[in-house]
Amino acid sequence: MAETARIAIIGGGFIGRSWATLFAQHGHEVVLQEPNATSRAAMFPAIRASIDQMAEAGLITEAAGDVLDRITSVSDLAAALDGADYVQENVPEDLEVKRALYRDMDRLADDTTVLASSSSSITCEQVCSELAGRERCLVAHPANPPHLLRAVEVVPAAFTSETTVERTVSLLSGVGQVPVVIGEIDGFVMNRLQAALAREALALVSAGIADADAIDSVVKHSLGLRWAFMGPFETMDLNAPGGFEDYALRYGVPFARLFGEDRWPVGAVASVHASRRKACHLDELDDRRNWRDRSLAALVRHVRQQKR
Amino acid sequence: MAETARIAIIGGGFIGRSWATLFAQHGHEVVLQEPNATSRAAMFPAIRASIDQMAEAGLITEAAGDVLDRITSVSDLAAALDGADYVQENVPEDLEVKRALYRDMDRLADDTTVLASSSSSITCEQVCSELAGRERCLVAHPANPPHLLRAVEVVPAAFTSETTVERTVSLLSGVGQVPVVIGEIDGFVMNRLQAALAREALALVSAGIADADAIDSVVKHSLGLRWAFMGPFETMDLNAPGGFEDYALRYGVPFARLFGEDRWPVGAVASVHASRRKACHLDELDDRRNWRDRSLAALVRHVRQQKR
Repeated sequence: MAETARIAIIGGGFIGRSWATLFAQHGHEVVLQEPNATSRAAMFPAIRASIDQMAEAGLITEAAGDVLDRITSVSDLAAALDGADYVQENVPEDLEVKRALYRDMDRLADDTTVLASSSSSITCEQVCSELAGRERCLVAHPANPPHLLRAVEVVPAAFTSETTVERTVSLLSGVGQVPVVIGEIDGFVMNRLQAALAREALALVSAGIADADAIDSVVKHSLGLRWAFMGPFETMDLNAPGGFEDYALRYGVPFARLFGEDRWPVGAVASVHASRRKACHLDELDDRRNWRDRSLAALVRHVRQQKR
Repeated sequence: MAETARIAIIGGGFIGRSWATLFAQHGHEVVLQEPNATSRAAMFPAIRASIDQMAEAGLITEAAGDVLDRITSVSDLAAALDGADYVQENVPEDLEVKRALYRDMDRLADDTTVLASSSSSITCEQVCSELAGRERCLVAHPANPPHLLRAVEVVPAAFTSETTVERTVSLLSGVGQVPVVIGEIDGFVMNRLQAALAREALALVSAGIADADAIDSVVKHSLGLRWAFMGPFETMDLNAPGGFEDYALRYGVPFARLFGEDRWPVGAVASVHASRRKACHLDELDDRRNWRDRSLAALVRHVRQQKR
C-alpha cells in the first residue's frame, strides 16, 4: 500500500470517527461515510475534540486543522469506495446489516481494496463467505478508541488471502497500531479475556465475597498496573526464578483447582514458555525484572499524580 | 494504634523487606525478624536498593539513611514481638509452618497485638482457629511488592474481631495502602481474578487461536490500560450510556454464552450497578467519561515514553 493511502471509513459513529482521526493523523487521505445527516454534522466537531484532547496530552503536535483537512465526509457508499485502498467498516453488530453492506462493498470497491470490519463479535466467515471477493475481507477489531489504544485484533477467515492480512498488518503498523493476527473464535481474544475476568468478578459478587468497589480497587492497585505494560504472561514469566514453566510448577495446580481442574494444560504451558524465551532468554530475566521494577515505579508515580 | 507504631515484620524475604520499607517510609518503627543469618545480612542492601529506586521514580524524598534508621533486624521471634502493636507475617505458604509460628506468636505477643498474615492462599481460619487469641488474627495479603502497589486484601476469619479489622484497615490506610476487606475464599480476589484470566488465556493458546505474545500484546494495548486506573467494573460502567445495568443488557448474554451460560447472574448485576451509582450518579457519568478519556490519554503518553 502506498505511503499515503486512501482510506474509506464506513460509519461515522464513535469508532468510525476514532479510526478517521488515527488515519488522518498519520497522513492518510480519509473519506468518512455516514448516511445520516445529523450524525454526519456531528462528526467533525467530535473529531476536533479528540484531536484537542490528544494535543493536551502531548500525543499530537500538528495543528488540528491540518489533520481535519485530510478528512472528507460523504453520504454515499459508492463515493466513499471510489479509489479506496483500504476500507474500515463500523456499522452496528447485526449480521444481516453487515451482509447487505458487504455485498454492496464487494461490488463497488476495486478488486484489490481491503475490506476490514471493526466487528467485535461477528466473524468474517459469517459475513463474507458468499462474496466473489471474499479473499480481500477480514476483521480488524480495534480496542476502543483506536486513536488512543493500539491493539487491533486482525482475524482472517479461512478464505482470506495472505496478501490481505499482510497489507492490513502493514497499514496498521504504519499508523502506530499493534495489529495482532489471531484465529477465528467467538469474542476474539480481547472480549474473551474481558468476559472471563468479568465472569469470575460477578461470581465473587454473587457469593458475597466482595462488592464492585472492592474488586475494582484490588485490580487497579495491583494486577491492572502490571498488565498495563506487560500483559499477563510476561507478568507471570517474571514472577518465578525460572520463567513461566517454573511459575506453572509453583502455581499451575492451585490456580487450576480454583476452577475444579487438576492442572494447567501442559501443551499450552510449554508453548507460553517457548514464546517467552524467544522474547527474553533465561539469562536476561534479571535484567528484564529490573526493567519491570523501574517501569512499575514510574507508572505508579504517574497514576498517583493524576486527578481523581 | 499510635501515629508511630511498632511494627514487627516476620520473615526477611522479598515481601517482608518490602513491607519493612513501606512502614519505615511512613515513620513507623520496624523490627524485621529473620532467623537465617545469610538472609538477614542481605536485607538492608536490598531495602536500600528499593528506596533508591523509589527515589529515582520520585516516589520518596527522605534520605535513604533516615528511612533505614527506623528498621532494626533481629533473629529472635520473642525480641521482634516485644512491644509490637502490629505483626506482619511473611513465612512460606506451608500450613504446618504457619500453625507452629502462630502458636508461638499468640503466646509471645501482647493480647492486643494484631497478627496479620501476608498469605496469598492459606486462610486465617485454617491457621488460627485453635488459638486462644484468634480474634486478633487475620490475613492482610498485599499486592507484590507492597511498597509500590497499594492493594491489600484484608481477610478476617469468622472469629476475627471487628476491632482487629478496624485497626488493620486504619494502619494500612495510614501508610497509603488501599486495604480492601473481603470474605474468606480460596485464592482471595486478586489471585482468583488472575487465575480466571490465565485460564482463558491458556485455553486460547491450547486452541491455537493466539500465542503468548499475541495475548500479552492485546492486553497491554487495550484492557490493561483501562484496568490500571479504573478496574473492570468501572470500565464497563462507563462503556454503556446507562451504566453497568445497561452494559449488562447489551453484553451480558453474549459474554455469558462464551462460557456456555445463558446470562450474567441477575443479583450480581444489580449489586454492581448499585455500587457504581453510589460512586457516580447517572447524571455524573458524562463527566466521569471525560475524566476517563483524559486519564487514558495521559496514561498512553506515559507508557509510550517509557523505555522498552
